[in-house]
Amino acid sequence: MDFETKYSKLGNSLQSSLIRELLKYASVPNAISFGGGVPDPETFPRKELSQIASEIIEKEYAYVLQYSTTEGDPELANQIIAMLERIYGISNLSENNIMFTTGSQEALELAGKIFLDEESIAIVEDPFYLGAASAFKMRFPKFVTIPLEDDGMNVDVLEKELKSLDEKGLIKKVKFIYVIPNFHNPAGVTLSYEKRKRIIELAERYDLPIIEDDPYGLLRFEGEPLDPIFKMAGPERVILLNTFSKILAPGLRIGVVIGSEQVVRKFVLAKQGTDLCSSALTQRLAARYFERYDILQQITPTIKLYKSKKDTMMQAFEEYFGDIKGIKWVKPEGGLFTWVTLPEGFDTMEMFEIAKQKLVFYIPGQPFTPDNKVSPSMRMSFCLPPHEKIVEGVKRLRDTILEYGKTKGLI
Amino acid sequence: MDFETKYSKLGNSLQSSLIRELLKYASVPNAISFGGGVPDPETFPRKELSQIASEIIEKEYAYVLQYSTTEGDPELANQIIAMLERIYGISNLSENNIMFTTGSQEALELAGKIFLDEESIAIVEDPFYLGAASAFKMRFPKFVTIPLEDDGMNVDVLEKELKSLDEKGLIKKVKFIYVIPNFHNPAGVTLSYEKRKRIIELAERYDLPIIEDDPYGLLRFEGEPLDPIFKMAGPERVILLNTFSKILAPGLRIGVVIGSEQVVRKFVLAKQGTDLCSSALTQRLAARYFERYDILQQITPTIKLYKSKKDTMMQAFEEYFGDIKGIKWVKPEGGLFTWVTLPEGFDTMEMFEIAKQKLVFYIPGQPFTPDNKVSPSMRMSFCLPPHEKIVEGVKRLRDTILEYGKTKGLI
Repeated sequence: MDFETKYSKLGNSLQSSLIRELLKYASVPNAISFGGGVPDPETFPRKELSQIASEIIEKEYAYVLQYSTTEGDPELANQIIAMLERIYGISNLSENNIMFTTGSQEALELAGKIFLDEESIAIVEDPFYLGAASAFKMRFPKFVTIPLEDDGMNVDVLEKELKSLDEKGLIKKVKFIYVIPNFHNPAGVTLSYEKRKRIIELAERYDLPIIEDDPYGLLRFEGEPLDPIFKMAGPERVILLNTFSKILAPGLRIGVVIGSEQVVRKFVLAKQGTDLCSSALTQRLAARYFERYDILQQITPTIKLYKSKKDTMMQAFEEYFGDIKGIKWVKPEGGLFTWVTLPEGFDTMEMFEIAKQKLVFYIPGQPFTPDNKVSPSMRMSFCLPPHEKIVEGVKRLRDTILEYGKTKGLI
Repeated sequence: MDFETKYSKLGNSLQSSLIRELLKYASVPNAISFGGGVPDPETFPRKELSQIASEIIEKEYAYVLQYSTTEGDPELANQIIAMLERIYGISNLSENNIMFTTGSQEALELAGKIFLDEESIAIVEDPFYLGAASAFKMRFPKFVTIPLEDDGMNVDVLEKELKSLDEKGLIKKVKFIYVIPNFHNPAGVTLSYEKRKRIIELAERYDLPIIEDDPYGLLRFEGEPLDPIFKMAGPERVILLNTFSKILAPGLRIGVVIGSEQVVRKFVLAKQGTDLCSSALTQRLAARYFERYDILQQITPTIKLYKSKKDTMMQAFEEYFGDIKGIKWVKPEGGLFTWVTLPEGFDTMEMFEIAKQKLVFYIPGQPFTPDNKVSPSMRMSFCLPPHEKIVEGVKRLRDTILEYGKTKGLI
């Protein structure tokens, strides 16, 4: 039969992700890819995890091989509570404030389920993290997008938009403000302390929840760490999403929702029907790892590695992009990404055809725009290619930019 | 803030599962529980899995600790393809017909997303598997329920319902027929070969997909194995859902969707926004296990164990229920469950209060009815309690039934 005739509105709306299609090219020989947002596998603590896995399967088999509760492993919850206290000074959390998810993608999807209807409004950043976009879009809400600046969301625009929604009687339709505060994906920027305060003030004024998505916060290379919005405004205002994908290993598929008991309970109910529970094995593996090793010490070499690759990329930008008028790039203080914006008139999606020929790959900005509009920007990840490939890739990208720019009469 | 004001229609509809609440009582000392549907941890191949886990994390770390593709591990897909060929003689499948999920709960949830809108109709069994109910209900469809008999779905009722829907011009709203063919949860019954053929004929007549959910099929104690509907009607008609939770270990959280390339592609797109990918670690763990060990040999002791516990329960039923007029129970040929139906007038939910006092636990039939209506039935799992506890529990249940029956004037 033709299943097409049976699909739901959602089923019909699902389209192949552009990134997936683009990344297919990245595996050809000699290609240099800045596309993926995946950690360097050499940073995974394989020896430690291998030993712990063997131990817990043998000794704790009745727990780790069995169904977990929907909430997840209480031992891991207690490790998270201790980490939040030690790293950020966040206190007064109990197991009831914590739920584990199958990667932070699931947390975003559950947030969509819990909060969004078709007539709902979600306040999001522009550029908009693709994983959140694909999760939220499954609920068909409306988006109000707030442009990002070098120090995060433009809070004046946020204020104006909220005021306008209030005046139009639409503020009740606004379900949350979604923010990636540190080393934004894709934009690489970090939300300043002042702006964090302004966002909280506005959320309080209009009584809106804030969803703070912080997968990269611990991967800071330079600059002073800033308080999480969750710490500043508390679980009665903020839902904090975290993941071990960037600090431990994505293959474990562990994300975590941290919030008020009331809202975490709702996440638990939504997760029950979605995948019942996440793997007890990978959760306990993480719990024992955090118990035995100091995560802050463990990630020091990872941070050093990413910083040095970031520095290499920034130097290569200076060298090869320095003379291209109107080009700019973000200097990230941590994380995996930088965001390069070409002069007006450039279309990084169209330019991708030339990049393909030159065997250099990036993610065009277009899929990160809420309406899939033409974009002169591109996301580049520095964490995976070796240093010399970073330099060579940036050189190839220069050639790509110049060739495209000349063809189009832009340079 | 009060998050309640921000919840979606779905968010507001989510209620705590009755089973969760009931099972809380089951952990008191001296309680005997037939409630859970979880495998006996002693059946988990812990030595084998422990060794494989340690090996693959050490040697295949760049794969198993990294993000997987949304489709899942191709090596595991090839193991599944080989198993389907060897066990059922199903051939002509490729990796493109296979997608792995985070437990089969996720497969059900994705099926809901892909097929169901609010005005959609899903044909389901009565009693209705709770996991499917909670997944499908998140899409707010209408259900048409078909009663189960000792040999599965009443196909005459199915035919009548489909005819009536067709006459009312509603057949296009029917999105699928959902069936658990083997050792039904909760009813314990198995769909006969003749009825499988009738369901396929009806699905073809009205051009409807069949979702065949078969978590228990390999756990057959007695009787002849029957062809999967998927084998009889092919991937152009049937989507087959499977899981390793009952034959290997639930803690791995691996389910599998087997279908036409077209429909599997749609599941992949839905999964991308839902949890991006399942754990590469637990998938590769299963792949290497199936590669090294013969699953049919490995589950032989499990089947023997469950059969002997089932026999113990059936004997105890004869002994302690034999003289209760009007009681009946299903004699399952495999799986984890039997379904006991008490005489008319009994309400197993109300009776639960007495069972609680007597420290014996079952799952009342009520949550398995599509409209949460009073039920004289109850689900009992025999796989977890030791033999002597099974006998003692059935004895306590007899006392419970007699006490309730007398109080209510039913006996």
